[in-house]
Amino acid sequence: MAFVSVTADFGPVATAICRGVILTIAPQATVIDLTAYVPAFDVRAGSLALWYGLPWLPVGTHVAVVDPGVGMERLGVAIEVERGDVLVGPDNGLFMAAADRLGGIRRVHALESASHRLSVVTTTFHGRDVFAPAAGHLAAGVPIEALGRAVDPAGLVRLPPLRPEPAEGGLRIEVVTVDSFGNLYLGGDPADLAAVVGPLRPGLPLLAGDQELVWAETFGRVGPGEALLFEDSDGRLCLALNQASAAERLGVHEGDRILIRAA
Amino acid sequence: MAFVSVTADFGPVATAICRGVILTIAPQATVIDLTAYVPAFDVRAGSLALWYGLPWLPVGTHVAVVDPGVGMERLGVAIEVERGDVLVGPDNGLFMAAADRLGGIRRVHALESASHRLSVVTTTFHGRDVFAPAAGHLAAGVPIEALGRAVDPAGLVRLPPLRPEPAEGGLRIEVVTVDSFGNLYLGGDPADLAAVVGPLRPGLPLLAGDQELVWAETFGRVGPGEALLFEDSDGRLCLALNQASAAERLGVHEGDRILIRAA
Amino acid sequence: MAFVSVTADFGPVATAICRGVILTIAPQATVIDLTAYVPAFDVRAGSLALWYGLPWLPVGTHVAVVDPGVGMERLGVAIEVERGDVLVGPDNGLFMAAADRLGGIRRVHALESASHRLSVVTTTFHGRDVFAPAAGHLAAGVPIEALGRAVDPAGLVRLPPLRPEPAEGGLRIEVVTVDSFGNLYLGGDPADLAAVVGPLRPGLPLLAGDQELVWAETFGRVGPGEALLFEDSDGRLCLALNQASAAERLGVHEGDRILIRAA
Repeated sequence: MAFVSVTADFGPVATAICRGVILTIAPQATVIDLTAYVPAFDVRAGSLALWYGLPWLPVGTHVAVVDPGVGMERLGVAIEVERGDVLVGPDNGLFMAAADRLGGIRRVHALESASHRLSVVTTTFHGRDVFAPAAGHLAAGVPIEALGRAVDPAGLVRLPPLRPEPAEGGLRIEVVTVDSFGNLYLGGDPADLAAVVGPLRPGLPLLAGDQELVWAETFGRVGPGEALLFEDSDGRLCLALNQASAAERLGVHEGDRILIRAA
Repeated sequence: MAFVSVTADFGPVATAICRGVILTIAPQATVIDLTAYVPAFDVRAGSLALWYGLPWLPVGTHVAVVDPGVGMERLGVAIEVERGDVLVGPDNGLFMAAADRLGGIRRVHALESASHRLSVVTTTFHGRDVFAPAAGHLAAGVPIEALGRAVDPAGLVRLPPLRPEPAEGGLRIEVVTVDSFGNLYLGGDPADLAAVVGPLRPGLPLLAGDQELVWAETFGRVGPGEALLFEDSDGRLCLALNQASAAERLGVHEGDRILIRAA
Repeated sequence: MAFVSVTADFGPVATAICRGVILTIAPQATVIDLTAYVPAFDVRAGSLALWYGLPWLPVGTHVAVVDPGVGMERLGVAIEVERGDVLVGPDNGLFMAAADRLGGIRRVHALESASHRLSVVTTTFHGRDVFAPAAGHLAAGVPIEALGRAVDPAGLVRLPPLRPEPAEGGLRIEVVTVDSFGNLYLGGDPADLAAVVGPLRPGLPLLAGDQELVWAETFGRVGPGEALLFEDSDGRLCLALNQASAAERLGVHEGDRILIRAA
């Protein structure tokens, strides 16, 4: 049973249209949205959603559309990874973090075959006209090489890496995602922090800006409304409050940098 | 494999309930939301979502519920269109634009059969009690004529047409939809505008109120933050900024009218 | 064909991950979100969404995750109810109202079997690591008793009941849910109110605070913008305006109490 996911920044109607195009071509497929709500035009945020979500979805075909360059010169690609999935969308860096996490890239083909697109390709909705049809045909059994010429994986666009930087005895680190609880996912991992503040033991007192917090294993290890830093379910540093919003308390947004240091 | 879509203004839990009722009756069907987020009570917005989305979904049964008259005298209907789909919901104008785009109406039946509704029909949730069961039975193979008496298509409610009006050397035109990017979809098509300002050539300078913009093929043809007017993926006039929100920049909302003219 | 639903407070990406884990284990299952948008950390709101939604979904397995105690001592459970469904999630009161409405509890098992969880169980995402795998295995045919030891249903956590209280010749009653229209669902039923103000006849004038309203059968029985109180589609008291937001007009939020009395 073929599995297809859709990830995009254009909301529920447009992702439903993509799922509709896929199901028209591959009626037996199971097709779900990973999310329709990537922040608009934000390729980095889209790449993080894919990195976070795809490892837990069935092996399959994954369409993603965060595509400010639609209708311009950027390539459309199908990227086969070592786990066996195929990632379909624009060559703008969206897929590279997820591809690394799914074992690395096996081969890449350009989306050029006219018979695997809709008959009319508009200049502004390649999710519907190019990427969804390619995914539908892959789900229906078409081999990746039928979609177009092979592309050298080394030539794909990569986003600049996120690196925390040592500063004022701590680590200045980017808030890369704010979730629906107001939890702050940080652009670095526990080893980066341990290198600066020493071993991360439960109860270790820390500061994020002026906010006091402790290293802890899970939310309930601190009182309601108190702050903690922890290793999240996918190995990232995450700053949260127990049953309240860290984003609100600290007044920070995606893309801001915060200084974490020993208290 | 039967396909069913659900479109409504009452949010995710209530659409999930509708999908649950459909799947209880037709467990083999593929059932998706086109959207649960039509603006509340806005029949026009619902009709535009259906016009925009349904052509790209598989042929099937499409339930839509934007229904301020629920429990009153308005009819519930199943509308069969030339493409082969059946549209199920209230007779309040919601379906007519989509029906036209799907080839026009073939026949209409009222939703009157007690054996194709839930056993208790409440006064306030016909999506669950009347429309979803009808769609489930259609998806399970029940013929449309089993749902109730034939209704004359000419007697169905139609929304007043949206017409742009010539004004001050340009076109005063309604903003009919604002998407998640802040792009403005306008109640008129490129031919309406060309009739007033002449041929729409790439780079043609225009004004929307005081905002300078150009006619262009896609977003990336203007600089980031700059404005363009283009023919969207479904043939409508659309006003957008490259990687920014036109709705915010121009301070306009759905239902507002803007004056487009030659610069 | 196995049916599984997911209800959570952590947004679309995390519910898609849960659905992905379920579909990896049970690829033939039909898996939908009831909602990804329960208000954060709000176990009561989650329990009301399940009470409202589950009766209308197919008999199946229903995962729910509103889980401020994740990673602490609270139990994970699978609750089999008389209708035949199994409810899977934390033992924090989330399921009891729905279980009552689905005929009551038949048996309960703890989620302890290592072979029915993911191989690594994190401290902060049991939805993905414990509850979704259990649901997937149930959907794939694993018997509930394979998941862990039997638990006495009488020992499960219950939320304190919601009771309206007589006050000032009327009823002081909690706003338990505000829907996308701004309709106010109240923590009491028509019999509670009738006991205080007498029989609820259409047109009966009432007051909610200072707001005049009438008892009515459906929205359209009062003029646009006028207020009504009615028995909703699931037997609750609901206060609404015809085609406008009661929450906005009365300035009330979930958890507020309002005084309803005879006018």
